[in-house]
Formats: sequence, structure tokens, C-alpha cells
Amino acid sequence: MEVHEAIRTKRAVRKFSEQAISDEIVHRIVNAGRRAQSAKNMQPWHFIALRDKARLKALSECGTFAGHLAGAALGIAIVTVHPDVRWSIMFDAGQAAAYMQLEAWEMGIGSCMATIYEPDKARELLGFPDDLHIRAAISFGYPADSAALAAAQKKGGRSAMDEMLHWERWKGEGE
Amino acid sequence: MEVHEAIRTKRAVRKFSEQAISDEIVHRIVNAGRRAQSAKNMQPWHFIALRDKARLKALSECGTFAGHLAGAALGIAIVTVHPDVRWSIMFDAGQAAAYMQLEAWEMGIGSCMATIYEPDKARELLGFPDDLHIRAAISFGYPADSAALAAAQKKGGRSAMDEMLHWERWKGEGE
Repeated sequence: MEVHEAIRTKRAVRKFSEQAISDEIVHRIVNAGRRAQSAKNMQPWHFIALRDKARLKALSECGTFAGHLAGAALGIAIVTVHPDVRWSIMFDAGQAAAYMQLEAWEMGIGSCMATIYEPDKARELLGFPDDLHIRAAISFGYPADSAALAAAQKKGGRSAMDEMLHWERWKGEGE
Repeated sequence: MEVHEAIRTKRAVRKFSEQAISDEIVHRIVNAGRRAQSAKNMQPWHFIALRDKARLKALSECGTFAGHLAGAALGIAIVTVHPDVRWSIMFDAGQAAAYMQLEAWEMGIGSCMATIYEPDKARELLGFPDDLHIRAAISFGYPADSAALAAAQKKGGRSAMDEMLHWERWKGEGE
């Protein structure tokens, strides 16, 4: 799938089929995140891939709107240096997350971000060191409803281009 | 270009040709960022597209390693709500930045991130409101050396997969 088509058609998917995601596909998704650009190429991330149902359910209970993780075929927990160390850590984690989700979409796999509101609980579950932190995880899976892969864009789903694009200076001065 | 190929081949490009980037292509790049997923679909971003050489040079002087902006055919300044409001603002800005860069790459356009270390100077230059902030901008342009589009991956350019991928729990427990 071409890049522009993937970006144009991608939708959040929160309900997944029972179809498993193979090791090979997990590698492909994670590799997309691994390849992402980052400030000074510091790659401030680790990814923990979860397919164990009990563990996915436990992680889903570390967030308020993270229920979709419990039904995912794959969860990727994004573990980073503390976000306060520099602003680019979360920015770069977002770049990696975007690549992973787009790569998955190309393979017909949907995804949704989850915020981990209870990072200490998640640390206990996942066993990562005290100097690393978690704010987010991604659910992945083949959509329960395969029509999700070809759904039309929701009207008003994004701000209009002329609301968020400025030319040369704020408010269109210079256009 | 397919998603996996774009992600696999993408390199940072800091030296650009004189070839201009048309309005249509600017729209295509910005639209990729506009379509990015964000926490609660809050789309916490505005993009200011710069092609004026003097303005690009001035923005390049708002960062320490941002010199490549001066030679870019297009700069995109990423303006957001204050990053301290919630961790997801920079994460989501990163997602949008990743989509813009990948979409550009598909069209043979290279890019590089720049950190804006002097946000007040940048605010004066770009005229955005006091309640918004800037940390980053992206340089875009057709590469000065078109071989950059097909360069081999640098050995050791990224951590090895087994250094950053964990299965089920930190340190490969459960593998």
C-alpha cells in the first residue's frame, strides 16, 4: 500500500478479531518503529510486545480508556527515558508509534493508542527498570469488522486544512 | 512507494537542491500531518509552511543545529499547545511529523528535524499567539544529491532489534 493511501485510509480500530499476529509480523511492525528518526539518533525507546491475553488484560487495567488492549492480538508497550529529560523523547516516541501503526495498516492490521495512567502498576507488570517510564501502549489486531479497513473518512474527523495550515506567518499573512 | 519500503529506505537529508516545492506538494505533505491520529483526536497542532528564503534563514537561526533550514525548499514549523499541558502533545506532534516526512519521502523529497532552541525569537518571526509554543520545525527539499534517496542503510545506524524489542516482559522473559 502506498504511503499516501495508507495515511489517507487509516482509521483507529478498537475491536479486533481473534486472528493471531505471527512473530514475523510483530518483527515487521517493531522494525518500523526501530527505523524511525529521532533527535540525534538517540532512539529513546524500548518496545515490549505482548500477546499473552492475561498480560494484555492486566495492561488494559493500567489506563482509563485502555480497554481495547484486552481484546488486542498484540500490544506494544512503549518504554522510554523519563519524558521530562527532554521534550524530544515523547516526540520521537510518537514518530516511532506512527511508523508502527502505518506499517501495520499496510498489512491490514488496525491499531489504537492507549494512555497508561498507572505507570507504576505497568512497571510491575512488565518488569522494566526504575529509570525508564511508560506513558503509552498501542493495541494491534486484525479488525473484528474488516469493513474498518475501507471505511470512509468521517466528516469533520479532522480540522479543515485552512484552520491549521498557515503560510509564512500565523493567520495566512503572506499568502 | 509502499509503506514498508518508505520506512526502510528513509534517510535524513540536510542538503537540498534549489528545486522549488509547489503549493500542491505542500498541501500533500501538510495533509499527511493533518490526518495523523492524536489523543482524543485533539489535533494539538498548527503548521506554518515557509518557503521565503529570508524567513527560512531567520528560523534556522533560532536553533543550534538548525542550519539545514536555511537551505530548505520548505520549512514546516510545528506550533502546539504548551508541551507541559499533557505528555501526549509532543507525542502527537511527533506522529504528525513522521507522517509528513514519510509522505514527502514517497515523492522523492528529503527532510530533517530541527530543534528550535529560541522559541521567543521564533514566535516573533512567525507571529503565533502567546498561548502556543514551538519546539521543532522540519526542513524539506529535493536532495542536493539524488543518490540520498537510494542510499544503503548505515551499519549500526539503529540499535539491533534484540536490544530494544522485549517479549511479554523486560529482558526477554517469556520468550
